Amino acid sequence: MRVQIQTVIESLIAPVGRLDQTVDTLKFGHPDTEVTGIVTAFMPTQYVIEQAKARGANLIVAHEGAFFSHHDDTAFLHKDPIYEEKRQVLEASGIALFRFHDYYHRYKPDGVTEGLIQSLNWLSFVKEHHAASSVLHIPTETVSGLVEHVKKCLDIPYVRVVGELGLECSKIGLLAGYRGGAQNVLPLFAKEQLDLVIYGEGPEWETPEYVRDAVYQGKHKALIVLGHAESEEPGMKLLADRLTSRYPDIPVHYIKERPIFQIG
Amino acid sequence: MRVQIQTVIESLIAPVGRLDQTVDTLKFGHPDTEVTGIVTAFMPTQYVIEQAKARGANLIVAHEGAFFSHHDDTAFLHKDPIYEEKRQVLEASGIALFRFHDYYHRYKPDGVTEGLIQSLNWLSFVKEHHAASSVLHIPTETVSGLVEHVKKCLDIPYVRVVGELGLECSKIGLLAGYRGGAQNVLPLFAKEQLDLVIYGEGPEWETPEYVRDAVYQGKHKALIVLGHAESEEPGMKLLADRLTSRYPDIPVHYIKERPIFQIG
Repeated sequence: MRVQIQTVIESLIAPVGRLDQTVDTLKFGHPDTEVTGIVTAFMPTQYVIEQAKARGANLIVAHEGAFFSHHDDTAFLHKDPIYEEKRQVLEASGIALFRFHDYYHRYKPDGVTEGLIQSLNWLSFVKEHHAASSVLHIPTETVSGLVEHVKKCLDIPYVRVVGELGLECSKIGLLAGYRGGAQNVLPLFAKEQLDLVIYGEGPEWETPEYVRDAVYQGKHKALIVLGHAESEEPGMKLLADRLTSRYPDIPVHYIKERPIFQIG
Repeated sequence: MRVQIQTVIESLIAPVGRLDQTVDTLKFGHPDTEVTGIVTAFMPTQYVIEQAKARGANLIVAHEGAFFSHHDDTAFLHKDPIYEEKRQVLEASGIALFRFHDYYHRYKPDGVTEGLIQSLNWLSFVKEHHAASSVLHIPTETVSGLVEHVKKCLDIPYVRVVGELGLECSKIGLLAGYRGGAQNVLPLFAKEQLDLVIYGEGPEWETPEYVRDAVYQGKHKALIVLGHAESEEPGMKLLADRLTSRYPDIPVHYIKERPIFQIG
């Protein structure tokens, strides 16, 4: 069965319906091209593009943009040699690039969050999904036990922690991506009486400093920061599984990058 | 000589002149109170407030806000027990809290950046100061050597690195605080032909992913991420030194917090 790129895109946006305002557009390639293979990834790095090419895939579905800008502003990159080379590699490859960000976050539940929860083997512990967070009640475990659990389940070498490693936690708030800001997290901490929040990325002197003050006050609060990519990669892996089921005749690969930061 | 809180504030803003729009206001306390002692800090944590009290200081000059919000929005913290306790501790202490953010960044050169460069012993290597960054030409050193240098000079246990540890660097861009975004850093990388950027904090899939692609292309680029607090604390330490010279009869203390994150 021949499948066009536009067909795949339509299937991805169907659960939400077309959005008027979205960054989720076809950035490269043509909608009517027949799909030879699909790669999903958090970030369309040049390595991911070359890997797609090597595997004969002509559609990359990536959560973030290729050029380091949420709104695809590339004016500030004019004549930048790294940008120019990457753009030329993408154009020469003939690979189509679709960004899948806003739609996936609007799945019910949020597809990125669902992927994260599934990778953590916590699907059965979900108490409630909110638009930008999920609340889980897990069997009681220490922060340090949970650190080991998330590192093992997500295959990541480290996380960043605020609070006491021995604190026992059962009520957890989970926020994938850049949702770690105070306005998102602090009301959740209070309303849901959370012991622990786990998020991807957020401003460093907002939620982390709140948790520092909470610990100083003797309150039972802790924070685990996964990293932006680390928190959203599982959602793109889950997407590859779903596309494999949907299009059994098309090779689908999830490509995981190495951790963006090494600790020095 | 009796010095009022307002006198200290006037001396802090004098090099810039009064700004119409600024977050730098007196958040607690009265301008006409006589200053008994001054504490400077990056963040007015509850620990810092208690330390100020213990040392008999009645003025805290802090770079960031007490309640986890750049614009002092506290509506979302209504009835939050951690916020309420911290606010009550501050009010009961009688300590005045002045935020010193916008003015200090508008010093020429930026006072926060100057503190960072001074702590790194790199004052003699400054090539040029821009409004939000400084360019330095240092004697050639590897990324890994520079990692050790900044950890030692700033007394911090780790940094986060993108790129190859063996890369030799001499042209460095330095950006204190939350200035690590692509729009700030990428044009600087290209225009100044930088080998390495060192910044405090920035969005994880902007500059870091650019450096990842650059390395993949074989370009000589690397990135060291200090942490927001780690990059701005030296500026608040420098401020304490300046206030000590300015008011020799008033005890002035710089209070450094522990690193906000531990690696788990």
